[in-house]
Amino acid sequence: MAEGLAELIQRFNPGARASVAVRHNGTLYFAVTPKSPFDPALSAAEQAAQLFEKADERLAMGGTSKSGLLFVAILLADMADYDAVNRVWDAWIDPKAPPSRACFQARLANPAMKVEMIMISATG
Amino acid sequence: MAEGLAELIQRFNPGARASVAVRHNGTLYFAVTPKSPFDPALSAAEQAAQLFEKADERLAMGGTSKSGLLFVAILLADMADYDAVNRVWDAWIDPKAPPSRACFQARLANPAMKVEMIMISATG
Amino acid sequence: MAEGLAELIQRFNPGARASVAVRHNGTLYFAVTPKSPFDPALSAAEQAAQLFEKADERLAMGGTSKSGLLFVAILLADMADYDAVNRVWDAWIDPKAPPSRACFQARLANPAMKVEMIMISATG
Repeated sequence: MAEGLAELIQRFNPGARASVAVRHNGTLYFAVTPKSPFDPALSAAEQAAQLFEKADERLAMGGTSKSGLLFVAILLADMADYDAVNRVWDAWIDPKAPPSRACFQARLANPAMKVEMIMISATG
Repeated sequence: MAEGLAELIQRFNPGARASVAVRHNGTLYFAVTPKSPFDPALSAAEQAAQLFEKADERLAMGGTSKSGLLFVAILLADMADYDAVNRVWDAWIDPKAPPSRACFQARLANPAMKVEMIMISATG
Repeated sequence: MAEGLAELIQRFNPGARASVAVRHNGTLYFAVTPKSPFDPALSAAEQAAQLFEKADERLAMGGTSKSGLLFVAILLADMADYDAVNRVWDAWIDPKAPPSRACFQARLANPAMKVEMIMISATG
């Protein structure tokens, strides 16, 4: 690795397995889930609301906000939840500064987790 | 969000739910689908051809072209369409400047949609 | 495309279909699989070890290392392999500089391939 590269990267809450978010070159990368431990009794929409609360915190940690989002990939454990999660999305997103996005169904790491998102955001 | 960050981000065709594409720091992010409304009578390859036509438009909107592509994720509703979509891909891509890519199968937001792609491109 | 953009992009091992990795603006993008041809007799963990060996090579080719990783998406053909692949991940990753990451199950392009990863890394 080039000398000094480490100083150009900011890792937030690095753990043994992953960092919660990583910033480089004015861009913040992270994945975000509902509140852990995941509660299977919650609907996908309720889990999405938890997820967005965590996303707000991560974006703030990274020096930005949802208004800086560039791209979001929405992973749903069940595409039947698409409309319900979109309603929470539509209420959360900055309507003047929405990111580009994609949505697909995928089995997630924990069967109690109904939604996960990958977010790329601009930062200061 | 840092003061002035909004001026560093260019959002193309922002709607209530998402922007069609977003540019920041010389990089363009977008997802692209076949022509809407999706026609389930079309093959995945025919839908891919529509998708690439839209991708060309989005890349041009963002000040770049397929020759600037850095990475593409190809999402297929049915991996059985892999070879057929690859033939359209191979004909579309700039053979002197191909992006890196990944391909996986995923249920997409609309059952009539057989292919979707996430693209990251360099821009001027 | 803006004049001169091509000079700002470095494509590693470009083939007719894709580049092995692409660098732009201090960021390296690539997908990586186990050693090809894929050996279905290997476990997902063994395939992951092969994948990380290839990832090390690609990161070096791009002028960086695993310590520069910003984000990794882990695609598993079978989520039942999550713990086994995580053990290989935990042993590979730089514990002082882990990337952010997401993991999901998806059918991959080749049924003999049990794991694939998309990596975004900082470079010099």
